[in-house]
Amino acid sequence: MDTIRVGVFGVGIRGHNLLQHVLDVENVKVTAICDIYEERIERAVNTMKEKGAEPPVLCTANYHELIACDEVDVVMIFAAWEAHIPAAIEAMRAGKPVGVEVAGAYSIDQCWEVVKVYEETKTPIMMLENCCYGRRELMLLNMVKQGFFGKIAHMDGSYCHDLREEIIGGNVNKHYRLRNYMNRNCENYPTHELGPIAKILGINRGNRMVSLTSTASKAVGLHDYVEKHHSDDKELMDTVFTQGDIITTVIKCAHGETIKLTLGTTLPRFYSRGLAVHGTDAFFEEASRTIARDGDFDEEHEEEWLKENLGNEEKYREKYEHPIWVKYIADGVKEGHGGMDWLTISAFFHALKNGEPMPIDVYDMAAWMAITPLTERSIQMGSMPVEIPDFTNGKWVVSFENKSGGLYSLETIPE
Amino acid sequence: MDTIRVGVFGVGIRGHNLLQHVLDVENVKVTAICDIYEERIERAVNTMKEKGAEPPVLCTANYHELIACDEVDVVMIFAAWEAHIPAAIEAMRAGKPVGVEVAGAYSIDQCWEVVKVYEETKTPIMMLENCCYGRRELMLLNMVKQGFFGKIAHMDGSYCHDLREEIIGGNVNKHYRLRNYMNRNCENYPTHELGPIAKILGINRGNRMVSLTSTASKAVGLHDYVEKHHSDDKELMDTVFTQGDIITTVIKCAHGETIKLTLGTTLPRFYSRGLAVHGTDAFFEEASRTIARDGDFDEEHEEEWLKENLGNEEKYREKYEHPIWVKYIADGVKEGHGGMDWLTISAFFHALKNGEPMPIDVYDMAAWMAITPLTERSIQMGSMPVEIPDFTNGKWVVSFENKSGGLYSLETIPE
Repeated sequence: MDTIRVGVFGVGIRGHNLLQHVLDVENVKVTAICDIYEERIERAVNTMKEKGAEPPVLCTANYHELIACDEVDVVMIFAAWEAHIPAAIEAMRAGKPVGVEVAGAYSIDQCWEVVKVYEETKTPIMMLENCCYGRRELMLLNMVKQGFFGKIAHMDGSYCHDLREEIIGGNVNKHYRLRNYMNRNCENYPTHELGPIAKILGINRGNRMVSLTSTASKAVGLHDYVEKHHSDDKELMDTVFTQGDIITTVIKCAHGETIKLTLGTTLPRFYSRGLAVHGTDAFFEEASRTIARDGDFDEEHEEEWLKENLGNEEKYREKYEHPIWVKYIADGVKEGHGGMDWLTISAFFHALKNGEPMPIDVYDMAAWMAITPLTERSIQMGSMPVEIPDFTNGKWVVSFENKSGGLYSLETIPE
Repeated sequence: MDTIRVGVFGVGIRGHNLLQHVLDVENVKVTAICDIYEERIERAVNTMKEKGAEPPVLCTANYHELIACDEVDVVMIFAAWEAHIPAAIEAMRAGKPVGVEVAGAYSIDQCWEVVKVYEETKTPIMMLENCCYGRRELMLLNMVKQGFFGKIAHMDGSYCHDLREEIIGGNVNKHYRLRNYMNRNCENYPTHELGPIAKILGINRGNRMVSLTSTASKAVGLHDYVEKHHSDDKELMDTVFTQGDIITTVIKCAHGETIKLTLGTTLPRFYSRGLAVHGTDAFFEEASRTIARDGDFDEEHEEEWLKENLGNEEKYREKYEHPIWVKYIADGVKEGHGGMDWLTISAFFHALKNGEPMPIDVYDMAAWMAITPLTERSIQMGSMPVEIPDFTNGKWVVSFENKSGGLYSLETIPE
């Protein structure tokens, strides 16, 4: 097999981490690097040297050059949120397959555009939503597939992650989050929890998200943090943050399931993706790490059962561990976000090398990223319900090109 | 002090339990009992006999008779949901103070009416929301009062309680829940979680709930339960339940706080009121029973911290136990829902005997009960945002008759 030559756009902290996974993929080499900050490029080039990789043939601050470069076959986009869709579109138009880090979109128009350009060019594109490859998320997908939960009525997910220092405390000019928190008010990061939920509910594959409402709490967390830790920074002290602290979004699906998303990134707490599955045969919630099956207890013995079983998630591991993770653990787990990052990057190249459909395709990407501007719209209009476009234009119901995957398209096991 | 003569309306399972608490209150006797089922009255009379109480002078199936009875000073309403407000209004008009068990309302009109009749008659009325006296809820109220959480941006609450057998399996003609699940689709039981949250957020006392959206999942839990356990009951098998399994409601408050309520009573799971507090200085969630303060850990030490502290709620007990519970435990805890029922009943009679404002007053009652028809409206209109009436007609902002209580009106310690 020929070597795949990769151009990496964005080598900040996140991009630098993912670069190392890319370098670990067999028959893949990194030939070009793009970042607007020179020191980041230097760090990336040093890391490549340390890992024994050939130096890139192109280092540039201009991503158009990276995409156009003759020695780049595939483009990986790890840059700031705003750049994802424009760069992805440009790469597809250049006929270069694209892997895109996660973000929300800025408009519905650009979601349609990424779909249209894909349909026109058929250039493979995958959203690199690593949480779809989370160990817990895949175990639940596996359980759902085996009917463990019965009919699912509702799911919860959240991106609760105290990012105050990351938003405020980093180098202000460099950090892409701050400008979003200063100007927008929305579910700005929906895909970590929505991705796995969409896979479980078969979104775009026999089901779809039809509408949502979104509500923002007041914004007090960031100003409070500035007061506590950066009170000498007059500009920050005077900043009125528009982004609400907690954004609650409720999505309705075509088959009557509801999905509740919570964004909480500006108040103190521990990390959680708040996954929960409410089915006719069983219940799971990440917060208490507990699985309860119908019939596990009657009301009189509930307290007793909870004493033994609260936090019992691990008891189901042996029986329901997803094949992807069974194999991954047998192979010896690699570094990075509990292995999710590696599994995601490796799934992308696996599909690419084998000409298989992308496990997280352009329709997933458009539908998931669209949640951000749709919540923005709903919040601005007093939590009005807004329609979620069907980016498949009906393919979700009559047929779907990603047939091999179907509902469980994630289950292609990367080699 | 003269003995207070109480008429009890409704002695089903719940009413029968509460009757026993009423009988335990000093200087209170039960003189009349009303229920449409004779065997319930018999059971109640037997219980009174066993507890050494005088037999009631009136037993009736007609609640108008109970309210009109000369030997009834105070009316306690423990009957079916639909009866609560009409009976409360009739009792107030008769000048007889009322304690009312919890429920949602059926229309906004009847919420206004209960307020208007109270304002006209000034007959004391209290909603007996026992969860306001929950040990966890009061500890959190106490912590909020002491500034532990900083500014609160968001709160969660739920009534997650697997009631399938109670809804379906009971004697169909007797059970008041079933007919609601067969005909309505709403947050039908909001007050157990909303009551404590409203007290914490100062609703009606310097803050108010201004609007909400509500979304219902599909209804699959009850039919599934009927199939599993009552498949020989053709009528139930043919019933199409209108009540969605999970109802998610998001409320906005005048000061920008948001409240998310979850109703889940028709799918298997363990009980939870899902309380969570998201503040600038701390976080609490019931599901993991964990309190995390700002500064408790930095991101690198989060995993470590969680190993030690996940489920650390009890560590705060000694410092933040609410005075009501401190006293209650010192006195020796009494039976019933972890003591909440007794504390609620006893708070009602305490306020009555001392001519104090009711800790959960008619404005609280109207605002909390109104959530039910408002969610019904929102759900029917595709999750449209709906306005929440200000039942105080502005008194929440300029002055409030329940001044002694203020934000922390629950803190009157019952003797």
